[in-house]
Amino acid sequence: MNGAESLVHTLLQAGIDTVFANPGTSEMHFVAALDRIPGIRCILCLDETIVTGAADAYYRMTGKPAATLLHCGPGLANGVANLHNARRARSGVVNIVGDQATYHRPLDAPLTSDVEGIATPVSAFIHRATSAATVGADTAAAIAAARGFPGRVATLILPADTAWEDGGVVVAPLAHDGPEAVAEESIEQAAALLRNGKPTMLLVGGQALGEVPMRMAWSITRQTGAKLLAERSPARLARGRGRVPVERVPYPIDQGHAAFTGVEQLILVNTPPPVSFFAYPGKRGELQPEGCEIFILSTPEQDGATALAVLAQLLGAPEVPPADPGPRPECPQGKVTPEGVAQTLAAVMPEQSIIIDEAISFGRGFYPGTRAAPPHDWLMLVGGAIGEGIPLAVGAAVGAPGRRVIALQADGSAMYSLSGLWTQARERLDVTTIIISNRKYAILLGELAGVGANPGRTALDMMDLTNPSLDWVQLAGGMGVEAARAETLEQLGELLTASVARPGPFLIELLV
Amino acid sequence: MNGAESLVHTLLQAGIDTVFANPGTSEMHFVAALDRIPGIRCILCLDETIVTGAADAYYRMTGKPAATLLHCGPGLANGVANLHNARRARSGVVNIVGDQATYHRPLDAPLTSDVEGIATPVSAFIHRATSAATVGADTAAAIAAARGFPGRVATLILPADTAWEDGGVVVAPLAHDGPEAVAEESIEQAAALLRNGKPTMLLVGGQALGEVPMRMAWSITRQTGAKLLAERSPARLARGRGRVPVERVPYPIDQGHAAFTGVEQLILVNTPPPVSFFAYPGKRGELQPEGCEIFILSTPEQDGATALAVLAQLLGAPEVPPADPGPRPECPQGKVTPEGVAQTLAAVMPEQSIIIDEAISFGRGFYPGTRAAPPHDWLMLVGGAIGEGIPLAVGAAVGAPGRRVIALQADGSAMYSLSGLWTQARERLDVTTIIISNRKYAILLGELAGVGANPGRTALDMMDLTNPSLDWVQLAGGMGVEAARAETLEQLGELLTASVARPGPFLIELLV
Repeated sequence: MNGAESLVHTLLQAGIDTVFANPGTSEMHFVAALDRIPGIRCILCLDETIVTGAADAYYRMTGKPAATLLHCGPGLANGVANLHNARRARSGVVNIVGDQATYHRPLDAPLTSDVEGIATPVSAFIHRATSAATVGADTAAAIAAARGFPGRVATLILPADTAWEDGGVVVAPLAHDGPEAVAEESIEQAAALLRNGKPTMLLVGGQALGEVPMRMAWSITRQTGAKLLAERSPARLARGRGRVPVERVPYPIDQGHAAFTGVEQLILVNTPPPVSFFAYPGKRGELQPEGCEIFILSTPEQDGATALAVLAQLLGAPEVPPADPGPRPECPQGKVTPEGVAQTLAAVMPEQSIIIDEAISFGRGFYPGTRAAPPHDWLMLVGGAIGEGIPLAVGAAVGAPGRRVIALQADGSAMYSLSGLWTQARERLDVTTIIISNRKYAILLGELAGVGANPGRTALDMMDLTNPSLDWVQLAGGMGVEAARAETLEQLGELLTASVARPGPFLIELLV
Repeated sequence: MNGAESLVHTLLQAGIDTVFANPGTSEMHFVAALDRIPGIRCILCLDETIVTGAADAYYRMTGKPAATLLHCGPGLANGVANLHNARRARSGVVNIVGDQATYHRPLDAPLTSDVEGIATPVSAFIHRATSAATVGADTAAAIAAARGFPGRVATLILPADTAWEDGGVVVAPLAHDGPEAVAEESIEQAAALLRNGKPTMLLVGGQALGEVPMRMAWSITRQTGAKLLAERSPARLARGRGRVPVERVPYPIDQGHAAFTGVEQLILVNTPPPVSFFAYPGKRGELQPEGCEIFILSTPEQDGATALAVLAQLLGAPEVPPADPGPRPECPQGKVTPEGVAQTLAAVMPEQSIIIDEAISFGRGFYPGTRAAPPHDWLMLVGGAIGEGIPLAVGAAVGAPGRRVIALQADGSAMYSLSGLWTQARERLDVTTIIISNRKYAILLGELAGVGANPGRTALDMMDLTNPSLDWVQLAGGMGVEAARAETLEQLGELLTASVARPGPFLIELLV
């Protein structure tokens, strides 16, 4: 058994059966091993940013890491932006990065690079294999690191000769760490704060945004009068009819501050303290009011879900059904507005849809407007590195077959990773992409105003995506994804209804 | 004057007047400063890999760095693969990376990352600005680093507040280092080697591949009987009618070894010793024969051009005109073959064309088949990180207006950076892209055989770009670039002839 084969068997023994791949020469033996050993689904992506973004979403939907297959340092580098996002989402990912053979590396051939250096900013675990005999053990260690709680990015560098040489040994799965328990004393302190009558807010993130812990948070806040808020960009949030309605920390800094106005005690559950996305001249970066007490019920490394259950019990908070969001809306008509798009989504999305939200500025109304939709999951861009929407849709569809993925995608951001559409076509993934085609970097126009800069011709040109306008129907068609354009809400409603009723990908270019 | 304005003025004083940009919030004041201060051409790219690849080619054509504008660590990361290529090409680049404000960074907002860590593997100079008052000096230092010989990647990290605060100071250009002179003794030793009658080869790279130094190398080798060879992937090579004909080190390892068969003395001029691109089981990585003496006439940091001139004089080698490459071919007809494509190129390319060669496997015949073309420059992928062809075409066209750029582009590699076509359309760049559409990663099929692996269904699927097939006419059209398909050599000839006769970009999907 060669090193590559021991790697594949070790992955399979740990239940890792999905590889997102953009391979090159140094990974050829790994690819050959995937051939000989059945059981792994290998998904080809045409750019590494698709590979890593897909792995991020796959973890969010399955709770299990996928492996990635990347070619040398530059291939890894192409995937770093979405590994940054995965790291912020606390997604487990096992990167396999092929590299020059151990004895070839000192010759400094052109593709030789500082792979460890490229991996370091985004990886919690980095290891370079040194021989075929230890590749199995290295793989098991990488998997254990990625599978710990919360998930981590683990990067295993595989010199070509450690893959092709004989002597591979399959290694059984290693134990990995689960969430750290929250001390009972902390839960009691939180209960005391919630009972002391001061204006209090529960800010919830990460694992605690699941359906069950959010019911606990809902009970607690109904019982005590505390406010409930979710972090700005959740990795995954269970919502829709029957789920707890919760707003998120707003992106614009002034609205961000306003969301915390009057709060004197802020209890954090699996989320760091709230800060603005960027700094703006003369404005505070911390979002909670000055003097507000921050109490950490659970860090992102801890079991906030259980802590919320215990806290609800301590407070004697009975389970309360979430407020009725009102009737499910019908498809609206007329001019395209954020509210109208949200209403269309709420009217059409099938039960258990997975919404990928990289709609950026135009899409801020989509979230509040879809409360009355059937139960669904909402996945966001956690790390703020734009261009992850299309890859997230790939990974979510692979990780949750049978569920419709609806990707709400700003046009500017979509351009970083549009080749993911090809993978959607190739794998016949059930993804409907709605390109919000405003033909500008609308967010930057807001940001330019936000920092007090006064835009002239050059600045406006830097935010303008016309001249030429992107034609998304052609772009999708060029990658084998059927597409159509919508200029009204009724057209959007018709196209969305048709697309969710049939398998495979579809793209709607929504002119706004 | 704020920090951003001092940056722009300092760039202008050093003659840096071109910025390739993909800005975000943290760069808004820099964008605003570009507005207020005329003189800089600011070119919007939709992905950072276009930004950095364009800067690489711009330097190759002008000998002067462009600035890049990149957004935070993830934006820089998206540009790292082509900065790797730029580093290998020894191109000077001044990266301006916006980052969180100094006082906001400790809050660890989502886009916060280890920017220095991401920059380190590709940068010879890294500095983080700490105040508006020193941004000018920091910029001048970065420019001096980038402009040294050979060119270097310099990365200046610009926290948002150092851009927006007042107190900026413009700093005049600093001195930068030129090429190190080759010791006279080394040139005498090389002369002695060339006279001792042993089979000798001159292997030339980097700066020494210019038209004038290659005439010197030609004279020397005609006089002494030594062989002449160029490095595998030159950053820029002057060739065509009237220029010295020179073969390059072949990519396939066996042909690479064969190119050096019988050589007993290898004289290196501005290039490292020749090694195979990858390792293959049981094959030597060094390409020169065992026991061959390697003599370094000049390192890539030295002035090999002058050394060759002195060496020619020492040897009393008269100037010899390059061999006549024979008549310029006419456009061929019939089935598309590598030789036929090369002949079409030689027949049609205008004088002073700039050829971008990322044609990979199918394109290996293009180089030898274009010797009889008019004088032109040939630019290759120096670092081996694929996906630089389209960005190189952008940068070459910006850097050398009035010259036709012809990009020979493999389809698989093109998918990493296809949004560069949009920038070509927006800037109305004179670029003809020929997509070699073989609908597979053909090079990997060769590599799989090369490492002795035996492909099955999974492996073949990983190298297959059909299912669905990419439609390049639609993809180009979606980005505003007119395009057409060629299935025969006569169609290629007609489309190429028409495209080089009119301004602006055009794309030919060549089915092979």
